[in-house]
Amino acid sequence: MRFRYPNGKLYTSKKRTSSPSVNNGNRGMRLEDDINESIAYYRREKMAVIHKKPTPVQIVNVDYPARSRAKITEAYFRQASTTDYNGVYRGFYLDFEAKETRQKQSFPFKNFHEHQLQHLTDVDEEQGLAFLILRFAETDEIFVMKASVFIQLKETSTRKSLQKQVIAKNSIAVSSGFIPTIDFLPAVDRLFFQ
Amino acid sequence: MRFRYPNGKLYTSKKRTSSPSVNNGNRGMRLEDDINESIAYYRREKMAVIHKKPTPVQIVNVDYPARSRAKITEAYFRQASTTDYNGVYRGFYLDFEAKETRQKQSFPFKNFHEHQLQHLTDVDEEQGLAFLILRFAETDEIFVMKASVFIQLKETSTRKSLQKQVIAKNSIAVSSGFIPTIDFLPAVDRLFFQ
Repeated sequence: MRFRYPNGKLYTSKKRTSSPSVNNGNRGMRLEDDINESIAYYRREKMAVIHKKPTPVQIVNVDYPARSRAKITEAYFRQASTTDYNGVYRGFYLDFEAKETRQKQSFPFKNFHEHQLQHLTDVDEEQGLAFLILRFAETDEIFVMKASVFIQLKETSTRKSLQKQVIAKNSIAVSSGFIPTIDFLPAVDRLFFQ
Repeated sequence: MRFRYPNGKLYTSKKRTSSPSVNNGNRGMRLEDDINESIAYYRREKMAVIHKKPTPVQIVNVDYPARSRAKITEAYFRQASTTDYNGVYRGFYLDFEAKETRQKQSFPFKNFHEHQLQHLTDVDEEQGLAFLILRFAETDEIFVMKASVFIQLKETSTRKSLQKQVIAKNSIAVSSGFIPTIDFLPAVDRLFFQ
């Protein structure tokens, strides 16, 4: 079965294999899977403990069939009040949102919800490491950007999206690799500790 | 409607009022509500950004009724792979589990799942602030304890529970107050920074 999460991500019950396709024709929207593989790698290697938060669901009704586990029969997606990912890296708190677009030259601001950017601002004020991972799906270009920088660029922009060349100038580019698929921690080091 | 989450907490659709009862006869299992109020207070006062993670749910089927929002019609509770609470405090990552018992003299080890203690150990190794908030419901006694200390006491114990006097000796006692209901951050300071 297949359905879409509120964030637009397509859910399929079949799991994607762990080796991503590298031919252009097959490049699609797969950032979340790649991030999940990367944070699992970081956990295994004891480099960072980062988890994706569960999708928030408002539960309305639950059945308790005899001799089997509780079955939720009515529930609704809730809007998340935070970003999808957070965790600990060398004692520091890190928190990020990962988004991708099929657009080629700019990243639409509407991909980010106001409450996510507010949460990242709150984290930044509490001295956490707040950032974004942005992917241009067509070209598989990935950028790691401080959330505070993105928010400032958004607030001073008169456009509805952020041009790729502006992103490139204000972030760290990360190549898509094999293990981990997206090695974003060195970019975090450069953004926050250098 | 009412149902129980897998952690045993009773769900009721009616929200508890924000002023907790103080008479002994009414003292019950309410730690989660009190923690939620306390972290909301810390967020408002910009003292820390801590959130409760959503209950993890495995979604099996979703209906899309015309002109209304997606309705989840089949889902199951999944076991969480982390603790319930994490966040950022003065740049540091903190992570904790909050549990209460109706027992009077000792805290049962079985209240903690192995994967939760493993997660707290992982956080501790990554230099995060990993701790427990333990409440004895009958007497409303609350203790904040380093997760590593609890785990060591558990591993060297031959009992099925940790005696209250051992907990008291190895943790910081926190009184139940009004705003915030459980002011645990000063205990975190004492445990990790003094």
